[in-house]
Amino acid sequence: MKKILLIGAGKSSIYLIDYLLNHAVADNFELIVADLNCESALLKTQQRPNSKAIAFDVNNVEERKKYISQSDLVISMLPAFMHFPVAKDCVDLKKHLITASYVSPEIRALHTQAINNDVLLLNEIGLDPGIDHLSAMKVIHKIKADGGRLNSFKSYCGGLVAPESNDNPWGYKFSWNPRNVIVAGQSTAQFMQNGQYKYLPYHRLFKSAETINIEGLGAFDAYANRDSLSYKSVYGISDIKTMIRGTLRQHLYCKAWHIFVSLGITDDSIKIDIPEKYTYADFVSSFLPANDKNILQNLCDFAGYLPHDEVIKMIEWTGILGNEEIGLKHASPAEILQQLLEKKWVLKPNDKDLIVMQHLFEFVNSKQETKKISSSLIVTGKDNIHTAMAKTVGLPMAMAARKVINGEIKLRGVQIPIMAELYEPILKELAEHGIVFKEKEEEIVD
Amino acid sequence: MKKILLIGAGKSSIYLIDYLLNHAVADNFELIVADLNCESALLKTQQRPNSKAIAFDVNNVEERKKYISQSDLVISMLPAFMHFPVAKDCVDLKKHLITASYVSPEIRALHTQAINNDVLLLNEIGLDPGIDHLSAMKVIHKIKADGGRLNSFKSYCGGLVAPESNDNPWGYKFSWNPRNVIVAGQSTAQFMQNGQYKYLPYHRLFKSAETINIEGLGAFDAYANRDSLSYKSVYGISDIKTMIRGTLRQHLYCKAWHIFVSLGITDDSIKIDIPEKYTYADFVSSFLPANDKNILQNLCDFAGYLPHDEVIKMIEWTGILGNEEIGLKHASPAEILQQLLEKKWVLKPNDKDLIVMQHLFEFVNSKQETKKISSSLIVTGKDNIHTAMAKTVGLPMAMAARKVINGEIKLRGVQIPIMAELYEPILKELAEHGIVFKEKEEEIVD
Repeated sequence: MKKILLIGAGKSSIYLIDYLLNHAVADNFELIVADLNCESALLKTQQRPNSKAIAFDVNNVEERKKYISQSDLVISMLPAFMHFPVAKDCVDLKKHLITASYVSPEIRALHTQAINNDVLLLNEIGLDPGIDHLSAMKVIHKIKADGGRLNSFKSYCGGLVAPESNDNPWGYKFSWNPRNVIVAGQSTAQFMQNGQYKYLPYHRLFKSAETINIEGLGAFDAYANRDSLSYKSVYGISDIKTMIRGTLRQHLYCKAWHIFVSLGITDDSIKIDIPEKYTYADFVSSFLPANDKNILQNLCDFAGYLPHDEVIKMIEWTGILGNEEIGLKHASPAEILQQLLEKKWVLKPNDKDLIVMQHLFEFVNSKQETKKISSSLIVTGKDNIHTAMAKTVGLPMAMAARKVINGEIKLRGVQIPIMAELYEPILKELAEHGIVFKEKEEEIVD
Repeated sequence: MKKILLIGAGKSSIYLIDYLLNHAVADNFELIVADLNCESALLKTQQRPNSKAIAFDVNNVEERKKYISQSDLVISMLPAFMHFPVAKDCVDLKKHLITASYVSPEIRALHTQAINNDVLLLNEIGLDPGIDHLSAMKVIHKIKADGGRLNSFKSYCGGLVAPESNDNPWGYKFSWNPRNVIVAGQSTAQFMQNGQYKYLPYHRLFKSAETINIEGLGAFDAYANRDSLSYKSVYGISDIKTMIRGTLRQHLYCKAWHIFVSLGITDDSIKIDIPEKYTYADFVSSFLPANDKNILQNLCDFAGYLPHDEVIKMIEWTGILGNEEIGLKHASPAEILQQLLEKKWVLKPNDKDLIVMQHLFEFVNSKQETKKISSSLIVTGKDNIHTAMAKTVGLPMAMAARKVINGEIKLRGVQIPIMAELYEPILKELAEHGIVFKEKEEEIVD
């Protein structure tokens, strides 16, 4: 019997595990769920047929190599920076690997060895990156096949809160790794705008967010996401004039978050040793100009707002201007901020999260007409376990894993899901699970 | 005969080598100058008695261990990030080490092993860090010995251009590693101000520079330098109310440099792939908002200046708004900026550089009088080889090295020069070489 080793049974793994165990008996494979905490793995597998839950420390080299060598396919749900040793072992031991993370330079460097060893290292097959690649490539290939020329591609995605569960002024609750939300955007964003290469440093990223309207949901903020430029050649659209991948947040979120960035309290690169009795207000004051103003007035003057402005209300709501003691020693500013927001941005048991994705394409078709296509996805979660985030991250991984273990995918080397071989069957199957894009095409009239 | 191995014979090593060779015969030690480029080492040693010049690659582990094992003391003039393997070998092979760099966490971790192996790893013994520690500790120990209580310690240092050689609007030319100047300050600065812990992120660092007056030289900009907080306990002044270490630049330099920081073109963490024909103006435009303005107007509006403002003239003078092609592939923004400034900020053969250091102490003496002491150092270079920078970095290292090799210093473990055993003899000897602090004490009258 073939074996799939899943490393990491965190929040986002529930749909992934369920999908695989729904097919394990019929397809005749075993799923081994490996987590530092064996109970958390067992909670997910529920002792279902063809499943096994094990305690597993990825840093234990011997153990890692043993389990990888006994499986046919590995799925890594570890944080991105921990993938590499797993990927290296997979290539050495000739096992396939699937992750939902961006391809790092070290993993990219394994490409030739992976091909030589007949191994597939499939990355970026979660939600974003993942479903965005699948759905964008389907439209891009269609436009090209019809003789069209793409001028502009904008792609936005956000993990948010459903309107009925939105009870805080930020419109945000954590539906995945909080740390990634706190340090989001901390590298100069790169994109194309009207034929010009554009670079936007972190300290101007959230201030420069644009407003995006999603039909039926209203206005959102969108900030540029990492390096969009590298996807020009990957997507086969090197001569495109405008190309940007962005992250969606509720309107005003970015303006408020920019205050945290301006202060410097999202910095995760230094540890600070503030006195034990420092409150959150003292912490914020340490990043503000020294003067005799009260903290609210000092912050307003620093950020250029009035005390009753909506974004200041958002900042106040977090409690970061309050007198609670921090109680963290030798922590980074980002860790201090994260500790606070983890108490406030909690997805409660009956809360529903919301995934919103929108692609906007502008192109000239074979009749020289300028057209635009929008392709939108909205997925609402069921509760704080069965989140839209876990579903949209886990299902594409699971579907790809099943196709790889069943031998349906012949692709080898370091790959991301941009080819019809992957996007056609997976998008079709995602639709059966309610993950459906709505497409709309219209002519652009100047 | 004892042996000193000097690794790295760059610009700053001329005074260091001269001093050691002036004493090598009488003190009966040999100086081996090791550089990637043997000729550059030979140019410095000039085949003087008790000297040897060798070609040496620090990354060649076998060679490195061989030469270190054959010497009694190693001086590393390598870039800071390259010290660690040398330091590790020194501890393992029981050889002393001297560097002018900040103690990194990895080097600090060698302390116990160094003590067990009877080895001294002496760091931060150049100019800044180095002479600043020597001169500050002398005054701090004196104030304490007299029963005084220190309230405030501010210490500023800059490597600048002598007025007679200052022919550019920045008042700056490279007298040491250009890369360090381009990426200076890229970590949140930490200091104490009136009893409050203060943190200043990079994107506000140069904007927040203060103005410092140096007697006889006029007004300078001073920006906060790295982590001043860690020196509170190191200096034995944990309860001090104000403590800041800062870097001096000509007045207006910081305002102009802040424009580069705001744009994002000092970023050294990403490589960008702009088209081959991009000019410096295109490069700057890529970081500016997209609009129809000409680049000068766009920059002025972005930065909040008028075209005839002095800081805008400074920016224009660099050529960064001009149409020269860049011709660098896959480079960081910082590397592109560095390439340009290396052509403009050249110390010409007869140019004299200038070192300025100033400490300001405020304390209450045993009679409860509030006093202040200023302690200032000004050193002018001879030419672009015999720079004040090479002299003030090299001589303290050389003097410490001689005392270590002669067995006069019994200190062991990872150390910086804050003890009388080091600062008394070295400050005395530096004075004989014209490196003299002027001290002035006066009462503060409110």
